[in-house]
Amino acid sequence: MPPVTRADVEAAALRIALHVRRTPLLAADLGGRTVCLKLEHLQVTGSFKARGATNAVLRLDRRPAAVVAASGGNHALGVAHAAAVVGATATVVVPESVPDEKARRLAAAGATVVRHGGEYAEAEAHARHLAEQMAAPFLHPFADPDVIAGQGTVGLEIAADAPECDAVLVAVGGGGLIAGIGTALEGGPRVVGVEPEGAPTLAAALEAGAPTEVPVHSVTASALGARSTAPLNLAIAQRTVDRVVLVTDEAVLAARDLLWEECRIAVEPAGAVGLAALLEGAVEAAAPCVVLCGANSEWVPR
Amino acid sequence: MPPVTRADVEAAALRIALHVRRTPLLAADLGGRTVCLKLEHLQVTGSFKARGATNAVLRLDRRPAAVVAASGGNHALGVAHAAAVVGATATVVVPESVPDEKARRLAAAGATVVRHGGEYAEAEAHARHLAEQMAAPFLHPFADPDVIAGQGTVGLEIAADAPECDAVLVAVGGGGLIAGIGTALEGGPRVVGVEPEGAPTLAAALEAGAPTEVPVHSVTASALGARSTAPLNLAIAQRTVDRVVLVTDEAVLAARDLLWEECRIAVEPAGAVGLAALLEGAVEAAAPCVVLCGANSEWVPR
Repeated sequence: MPPVTRADVEAAALRIALHVRRTPLLAADLGGRTVCLKLEHLQVTGSFKARGATNAVLRLDRRPAAVVAASGGNHALGVAHAAAVVGATATVVVPESVPDEKARRLAAAGATVVRHGGEYAEAEAHARHLAEQMAAPFLHPFADPDVIAGQGTVGLEIAADAPECDAVLVAVGGGGLIAGIGTALEGGPRVVGVEPEGAPTLAAALEAGAPTEVPVHSVTASALGARSTAPLNLAIAQRTVDRVVLVTDEAVLAARDLLWEECRIAVEPAGAVGLAALLEGAVEAAAPCVVLCGANSEWVPR
Repeated sequence: MPPVTRADVEAAALRIALHVRRTPLLAADLGGRTVCLKLEHLQVTGSFKARGATNAVLRLDRRPAAVVAASGGNHALGVAHAAAVVGATATVVVPESVPDEKARRLAAAGATVVRHGGEYAEAEAHARHLAEQMAAPFLHPFADPDVIAGQGTVGLEIAADAPECDAVLVAVGGGGLIAGIGTALEGGPRVVGVEPEGAPTLAAALEAGAPTEVPVHSVTASALGARSTAPLNLAIAQRTVDRVVLVTDEAVLAARDLLWEECRIAVEPAGAVGLAALLEGAVEAAAPCVVLCGANSEWVPR
C-alpha cells in the first residue's frame, strides 16, 4: 500500500471542506490555445498550503495548544490558518530573506514569526529545535503524508470540474503539492511537474534516484526554494508524475505578466510557473489544466 | 411584451458563448459572512462589457466594416473585442479624463482611440457625429436592447451556478448590466442596485420616475460615471430591480482592499461597489451574490 492513497485524499477533502475554499476553474485563451486555470491562488491564505496544513492539524492525535512550522512563507500562512481552526497558536520560522508581504501577512494572521537563517533548511533546523522546546508538533511543509493528502484535494477538484483535462501542470518546490495531485489523479490525466531552472529539486532527485541537494537561485525562491525533496515525496513522484520540465525565471515573469494582462489574475511568480511551461511549448496536451498555486506577493493599485 | 425578454438573454448567451468567458463563482467568508462572488472581472477585456458589445455586434443586420462607441473605457474595450470578432475596426471616443490603464488597453486591443470632452456625455455626442460621418453603427453602452440582453447573460450564469442565491448585488453606471441581470432573474433572487453616493444615477431616476441628470464625483467615475440613465433602462429597472442603495467612495475602496487582502482578487474601484454595500450592512440576504464587474485599473507587482 502506498504511503498516501487516493482514499486518504478523499478523506482529507471531507475533513477540510469547512475550513478552506473550493477554488474555481477558468477557461481562457492564452498564447493561442485554450487553457484551463485552477484558481488556487484564491485559496484562503493565498496559496494551496492551507489545505495540507489544515488536514495535518486536524489529523493530530490530540488538539494542540501550539504548532510550529518552518517555511518560505506560504506554508507558514497555511499553518497559521490551520492553528486558528483549532484554537492553537502558531510559531513559524522563516528565512531572513522572507519577502515583506509574506511576513506582513503572517503577522496579520496572528502567527509568532521568527526569522532565522539564510534559507529554508536553516529555518527548518531552528523550528525543529523550537518545537522540541515547546513540546509542540512540528508541521513539515511537504514530507508529511497528511500534508500531501491535503494538497491532493486540489487534484480531486480538477478531476470533478474538468473531466476532459488530459494534463495537469504543477509547480514543484519540495514536492508536496505534486505528490498529492499525483496521488489524487493516478490513472487519470498526466501530472507534469514544472520547476524553475534555478531550483530543479525534483528533476535532480528523479535523475539521481534519490533526494539531491541543488543550489537555489530563482525569483520564485520564497515559494519553490527547497534545496531538496524528501524520500516520501520522491517515491510518490516516481510512481505518479509523468515528467518534470524546467523553465527560466524570464519565462515565469512573462507568464505572470500575461495572466494579469489577459485575465486580470495577480499571482506571485511561483504561481505562474506551470503556465510558463505551457507557453514555452514544453508540454503537449489537448486539454491542459494549470494550477495557479499562490499569490502572496505584493501588488499595489495605482 | 417587455423591450428585452429572458428569451432574448438566453439567445444572447448562445450567440456570444464562443467569444466571451464563462466566469466562475467563488464562495468566501468576508466581513463575517459567506458571500458568493461572481468573478466577472476575469471576463475577456477585464469587464462584463464584452458580453453586451459582442451580442450587439453579432445582432447587426450586416457585418460592419467599422463600429463606433463612446465610453468611460470598459464599454470601449468590449466594443474593440466585439469588432475583432467580426473583423471590423473600432473607433472609440473616451473623455479626456480616461485613466491611463484603460487608454493603454484600448490601444493594445487595436482600437482607434479619440479623446474628447470632459466626461461621457460629451464623448457620446462626438462619437455619434463620427459614426454618422463614417456611416458606421454607433453602439450605445447601455441604452440598447441587444447590449442589455448580452449583459444579462451574467444573470443566467448566476442562476445556474448559485441556485441558492437570494439576492444579487449589482453596481450601476448607466443601467445596462442591472437591466440585463434583472431581466434574466425576474421571478428569482432579488436584484439590488448599488451606486456610489457621488453618482446616484438610477436612484435619482427611480425617485423622479424619469431619467434625471445627476452630478458625478466618484473614484468609480470612469466606469459608473454616466450622468443619466435612459428610459429603456429605467423601465426595466422599475419592473425588475428590488431597490438601489448608495455607498461612499471610502466604503468602495475599503471593499476593494479587502478583496485583495482576503481573496487576492484585484479589481478596479467600480468592481467593488456591490461588496461595499454588503459590508456596510445595507442589504439583508441569506445567500448574497456580488458581481465583481471590472478590473481595468492598474495594479503593479512589487
